[in-house]
Amino acid sequence: MPLETKPTGCLISLEGPEGSGKSTQSSLLAARLQKLGKDVLTTREPGGTEIGEQIRNILVHNSRGDEMCPETELLLFTAARAQVVREVIAPALCAGKYVLSDRYLDSSTVYQGIARNLASDPVAQINRFAIGNVMPDITVIIDVPPEVSLSRLSQRVTDVPDRMERENIDFYRKVREGYLLLAKNMPDRVVLVDGTRTINQVAQAIWEHVQVRLGL
Amino acid sequence: MPLETKPTGCLISLEGPEGSGKSTQSSLLAARLQKLGKDVLTTREPGGTEIGEQIRNILVHNSRGDEMCPETELLLFTAARAQVVREVIAPALCAGKYVLSDRYLDSSTVYQGIARNLASDPVAQINRFAIGNVMPDITVIIDVPPEVSLSRLSQRVTDVPDRMERENIDFYRKVREGYLLLAKNMPDRVVLVDGTRTINQVAQAIWEHVQVRLGL
Repeated sequence: MPLETKPTGCLISLEGPEGSGKSTQSSLLAARLQKLGKDVLTTREPGGTEIGEQIRNILVHNSRGDEMCPETELLLFTAARAQVVREVIAPALCAGKYVLSDRYLDSSTVYQGIARNLASDPVAQINRFAIGNVMPDITVIIDVPPEVSLSRLSQRVTDVPDRMERENIDFYRKVREGYLLLAKNMPDRVVLVDGTRTINQVAQAIWEHVQVRLGL
Repeated sequence: MPLETKPTGCLISLEGPEGSGKSTQSSLLAARLQKLGKDVLTTREPGGTEIGEQIRNILVHNSRGDEMCPETELLLFTAARAQVVREVIAPALCAGKYVLSDRYLDSSTVYQGIARNLASDPVAQINRFAIGNVMPDITVIIDVPPEVSLSRLSQRVTDVPDRMERENIDFYRKVREGYLLLAKNMPDRVVLVDGTRTINQVAQAIWEHVQVRLGL
């Protein structure tokens, strides 16, 4: 799938820490867009393809996760991204669809770049290599303080916390700072939404931003 | 494992197409070095670590391998490389060991760069990001014509050919051209050995090069 052509659809990425409500909000946003008659495709990172889900499995469930070096983590996330963008996202955009991605390139900028202290230049270069010219039209960051992230995570009914969920509050502080910095530096693309409110309030705030930005 | 310090050991990478005899020659070279009292560690790519073997599994045994895009392939190979260099190779070099790696950065330059037509600049950048300053002291390319590669592969007793083994003769031609180009462009690091001779003759040729280059 060549990425040189400018796609005609619209790519919206949802970003934020664990527990910020990205997947819930992705479903609600998809429903609102579908009500307007839009053809919507939702996907998630890492994953979204057969190969990407295999990569996700290494990233999320690795039993010796504390031994994975940040460089490997970045290259695995971007490998899954390179696959989903060519196999799923770009073809959908070329078909004029609205694509909602639960995480995209900014997750690497923030998690591996800022929170894991990798140098920003190679992170940006590798991100660019992975996504080609398929930049999001809008990125919605759902902002919640680290304490809220961790409190919501502790209420999740899962067997074992995954690698990112095992991180401590300092890590989540850096993640939040990274997202706030992105929103500040890229106001044309990135909008910040307060994620501490009710699900419906957050959904409404996201919808208003999307309507304005896309002229719906 | 920080990669800034100059390690005291010696890294020898073995390169060449499938069926060129890299793993056999790696064992024979290890035995000769051990006879001289050297502390030797052998490793392979992709793999060499628990995480790397999981990545290898995606790369080698992917049932829908023809749908993996070259960008994903490069990022997965370099992810495994980033892990093995920090977890295995750099610590061994710092401990003064001789490390023999069955494939290393040049495999990406040749397979994903030249044979899969990815642009050389990002391949080089991503390779550099993966390995830090841990360049091989010597790289031995075992040169065999594509016909020999494929004929040897066809005699292997395995259930199913893996992704690279399924490639056609044009792919192997590009791989060979890539390796020949590397040997021509980097004579200080890379030596080319004729791999069509007997196992012992090839082993002897490799050994003579290694002795001269390392002053053994």
